[in-house]
Amino acid sequence: MRKDKSNRKTERSNNPNLPFQPKGKLKVMFLGGVGEIGKNMTAFEYNDSLVVIDAGVTFPSNDMPGVDMVIPDMTYLAENKQKLKAVLLTHGHEDHIGALPYLVEKLNTKVDLYGTKLTLALAENKLVEHGLQSKVNFVTIADKSIVTLGDFTAEFIHVSHSVAGSVAICLRTPVGTVLHTGDFKVDYTPLGNEIMNLNRIAEIGKQGVLLLMSESTNVEKPGYTLSESVVENTMNKQFAEAKGRRIVIATFASNIDRLGMIMDLARQYKRKIVVTGRSMLKYIETACRVGHISVEKNLIIEPEQMGNYDDSKIVVLCTGSQGEPMSALTRMANGEFNKIKIGGNDTIIISATPIPGNERDVYNVINKLYRLGALVVYSRLAEVHVSGHACQEELKLIYTLVKPRYFIPVHGEYRHLKRHCMLVQQLGHKESNCIIPELGDCVELDKNSFAVTGKVAYGNVMVDGLGVGDVGNIVLKDRLTLAEDGVLVAVVCVGKNDGKLLCEPQVVSRGCFFSGDTNAYETIEDVKRLISAEVPKYVFNRILEVDSLKQSIQRTVKQYFKHKLKRNPIVLSVVTEI
Amino acid sequence: MRKDKSNRKTERSNNPNLPFQPKGKLKVMFLGGVGEIGKNMTAFEYNDSLVVIDAGVTFPSNDMPGVDMVIPDMTYLAENKQKLKAVLLTHGHEDHIGALPYLVEKLNTKVDLYGTKLTLALAENKLVEHGLQSKVNFVTIADKSIVTLGDFTAEFIHVSHSVAGSVAICLRTPVGTVLHTGDFKVDYTPLGNEIMNLNRIAEIGKQGVLLLMSESTNVEKPGYTLSESVVENTMNKQFAEAKGRRIVIATFASNIDRLGMIMDLARQYKRKIVVTGRSMLKYIETACRVGHISVEKNLIIEPEQMGNYDDSKIVVLCTGSQGEPMSALTRMANGEFNKIKIGGNDTIIISATPIPGNERDVYNVINKLYRLGALVVYSRLAEVHVSGHACQEELKLIYTLVKPRYFIPVHGEYRHLKRHCMLVQQLGHKESNCIIPELGDCVELDKNSFAVTGKVAYGNVMVDGLGVGDVGNIVLKDRLTLAEDGVLVAVVCVGKNDGKLLCEPQVVSRGCFFSGDTNAYETIEDVKRLISAEVPKYVFNRILEVDSLKQSIQRTVKQYFKHKLKRNPIVLSVVTEI
Repeated sequence: MRKDKSNRKTERSNNPNLPFQPKGKLKVMFLGGVGEIGKNMTAFEYNDSLVVIDAGVTFPSNDMPGVDMVIPDMTYLAENKQKLKAVLLTHGHEDHIGALPYLVEKLNTKVDLYGTKLTLALAENKLVEHGLQSKVNFVTIADKSIVTLGDFTAEFIHVSHSVAGSVAICLRTPVGTVLHTGDFKVDYTPLGNEIMNLNRIAEIGKQGVLLLMSESTNVEKPGYTLSESVVENTMNKQFAEAKGRRIVIATFASNIDRLGMIMDLARQYKRKIVVTGRSMLKYIETACRVGHISVEKNLIIEPEQMGNYDDSKIVVLCTGSQGEPMSALTRMANGEFNKIKIGGNDTIIISATPIPGNERDVYNVINKLYRLGALVVYSRLAEVHVSGHACQEELKLIYTLVKPRYFIPVHGEYRHLKRHCMLVQQLGHKESNCIIPELGDCVELDKNSFAVTGKVAYGNVMVDGLGVGDVGNIVLKDRLTLAEDGVLVAVVCVGKNDGKLLCEPQVVSRGCFFSGDTNAYETIEDVKRLISAEVPKYVFNRILEVDSLKQSIQRTVKQYFKHKLKRNPIVLSVVTEI
Repeated sequence: MRKDKSNRKTERSNNPNLPFQPKGKLKVMFLGGVGEIGKNMTAFEYNDSLVVIDAGVTFPSNDMPGVDMVIPDMTYLAENKQKLKAVLLTHGHEDHIGALPYLVEKLNTKVDLYGTKLTLALAENKLVEHGLQSKVNFVTIADKSIVTLGDFTAEFIHVSHSVAGSVAICLRTPVGTVLHTGDFKVDYTPLGNEIMNLNRIAEIGKQGVLLLMSESTNVEKPGYTLSESVVENTMNKQFAEAKGRRIVIATFASNIDRLGMIMDLARQYKRKIVVTGRSMLKYIETACRVGHISVEKNLIIEPEQMGNYDDSKIVVLCTGSQGEPMSALTRMANGEFNKIKIGGNDTIIISATPIPGNERDVYNVINKLYRLGALVVYSRLAEVHVSGHACQEELKLIYTLVKPRYFIPVHGEYRHLKRHCMLVQQLGHKESNCIIPELGDCVELDKNSFAVTGKVAYGNVMVDGLGVGDVGNIVLKDRLTLAEDGVLVAVVCVGKNDGKLLCEPQVVSRGCFFSGDTNAYETIEDVKRLISAEVPKYVFNRILEVDSLKQSIQRTVKQYFKHKLKRNPIVLSVVTEI
């Protein structure tokens, strides 16, 4: 990272009468969350104080087959771990807390972790799975909590979002105040009635904010995001209409407030609740443990007890709102869920919208549920889901209350960040005081300057099974090629002394063509013949020529497939000298 | 197919006074287009007359890697080709005409092909690519054309849709009239001013329709689909605002009317047009050839001539509205398109919405275009695209005008077909007079009966390169497994006589782990050791035991990977006896 210390000193010395002279600039480093939606992680550094906001994962796209998740490159944090004062969490979604175990493992030192009660409980679940909970000091904060972290103080401000216990973070630094919104929406009628603390944000804005970092997910959408109470109204209507029928609701397990609302409706309509899906059970248990919701005895019954109740007395709460293959709802749709069989007396509510990429899975599940005779209610038909992210008018509200000197849009692909900058420029913000950060960028700022000054290690670290980082672009490229046209293996044994074929070549293939049909037999015979014809070309000077023979076999077989089938399998050739 | 002839005869003899006694039932066979959106193909058979409507393809989903396209199973048509009177085309989209070359090849006899001028020209392009145009009699029809086809007559009725030259088909059969809507929308202000012939549909409805087959794509959407003239208004505004800037428009090459409208705007704003993208050029050339649009000299210029004009005098028309990797727009976004370099003075309009599954590709292109400094206008920001399919109010209009005795929803997944049935039931249609067909279903009907009576050969025939149908579920499953965790090949040479290892086993892998790092070396050494340890277990009774050794190697290596990396590669083992 390039630091322009000489320049800075000169600037200062020109202005000796200022009451307070910070000795450096604030560095903001983007390890994730910009240029993409996911793996949110931002580091703030001033002299010897380093603070990290969030440690999230991304779920892999179609061009990353076999990858379980993607985490940020945390090399910079590991190299500067002696400076690290705290990791602050804005909320408990996977894209904000999912990489915590990998961070804690990488740092290999005790980490102070700050978050609301629920957020920390969700983070703890995650750390416990990896046996790492003892490496973390959990520090619970509440709305308006202020904590000191080296040269920084951090204040936590309640916001509305699709998981309870979400906060924005106001980081006071020697160079000025930074406000990071986290993920938020402005909901005037949220479930639970605790409205986003707009007054505090207004107050902070009045005191002066140097930098606003605001989330950008819904910046393309005009107007306001609908309130969560809209979902409550729709659900209430569905409960009223489902008289005599069983109700099955699939939703995001993390939307604790929505689960609480459904429990209220169950009480009101005198229905018992059956909970299925491991993560649904886990989230409810966690929310109860921290006192975010309370569940009286007998409200929740076991699936096995359902037989004792009439359909009209049951609500099933389950996972699978994204059509996930192993989820409860998908198994019900496939008729593979023994405890709950779907039929004509079921009303199934999918309280979610498909995340881009999941549409086909979700609609396949809906098709199957309809085939089983159920009535299916989903986002295309009714307002059974609302977003947790602010639209344009809400983003304008926050910007206007805060009126920062500098602006950095976060939590978005480039198009979101760009549109967010265009939006605040419409409100009078100077273009030169906006930065659209790229992954890995280090922005340095103080009252007089604001610029990208360097780059830290960044990128997608892929987690596949127990391997972290050993799957890279070469492996992914091979997987994608294997998926396209499969693999063919040619094995040849040649004599060490005379280079002659010792037996017929062996050919094995997978994913290339169907090896059971008659054409395939002919294809394999052709390939064997072509390979056998290559071997005699390489009898002399064999030491170098084993590799040449391998390449020649690969080339010949590839040409054959290209010509005969217009296919391009990966061809592996193994030459053994005996 | 099961036919209940005895029953039918009894029915007839009870009613000897009817003036006309059709001697059989009409069979409607669904070879595609139901339970899925794509590969539309329906066959109608009465005694010795067989007529097919449409012959479309589907593009493969993510779970079909390497597959180029999917076509209907046309076995039934091949087996009954002597009855085939005609193939009728509703319009020129791929999902309605794409399988024509495969149909013609399979039938291997002269086929009479009916369609509007433009539809036939598009079909001809497709057949020419396969060198099959001489196997087809092209018969051009116009709005209200009536043709006789064995026991049937077919009338063609103009409808609005996202490709010009679209028609509904009214098939008059001995048992009654069938109206098939094709794909349509009701557009009162279409481009070109030829409104869907609602009067003729009303007239036919008044005469009595036995069966209505109506498309279902947008049945989940309330209200009306917006008119194509909305797009014209948006485009006009964009042209007005882009003063001094170059305009680049990506849209569906098949939407000829929209291309014509853009040409009109170019004339109005005194801009020249540059066309890029092979399919865009082909469609424009075809539309000109049949006289659907006319392009005066000098309106379209070559990319090389662009240098002679100011940015403000240029519109680029290109492909790539779905983020297709090889398309003109994607290459521009990647900076790989030498003829057109995108920069800060470009306004790029993507006049399309991403088809589900394409979102990530489309948004990647948009992100890159923004990064290049361009202003990007897309469906999330402005009404630059409207659907070509009818929403609920339009579907109700057609049903109400036609008021058929029987109803079959088509062109949709199960959920669409189901909701379409629910919609017409709200209009008073009897549930027992609705059938939701599954792929392969044969529905038999006359004035007195309407039921699914059997099944014909059906399914997804996959085209991969030059192979048609040789890629099936086993090959696809292998490809998906290869994509997840790659492949590992273990090669062992043993002595024919003593079953002893003749040399060190060889291990090759692809897509499993990165073979360049130090852990990988250790992994491969582990695997070799494990394999070597298996060999001595199989020295006796070798003839049977080569297979056992192979399986044992596979099992051992799989276990190793599962335990060490939680990965599950395909393991191929080759044992050679020398």
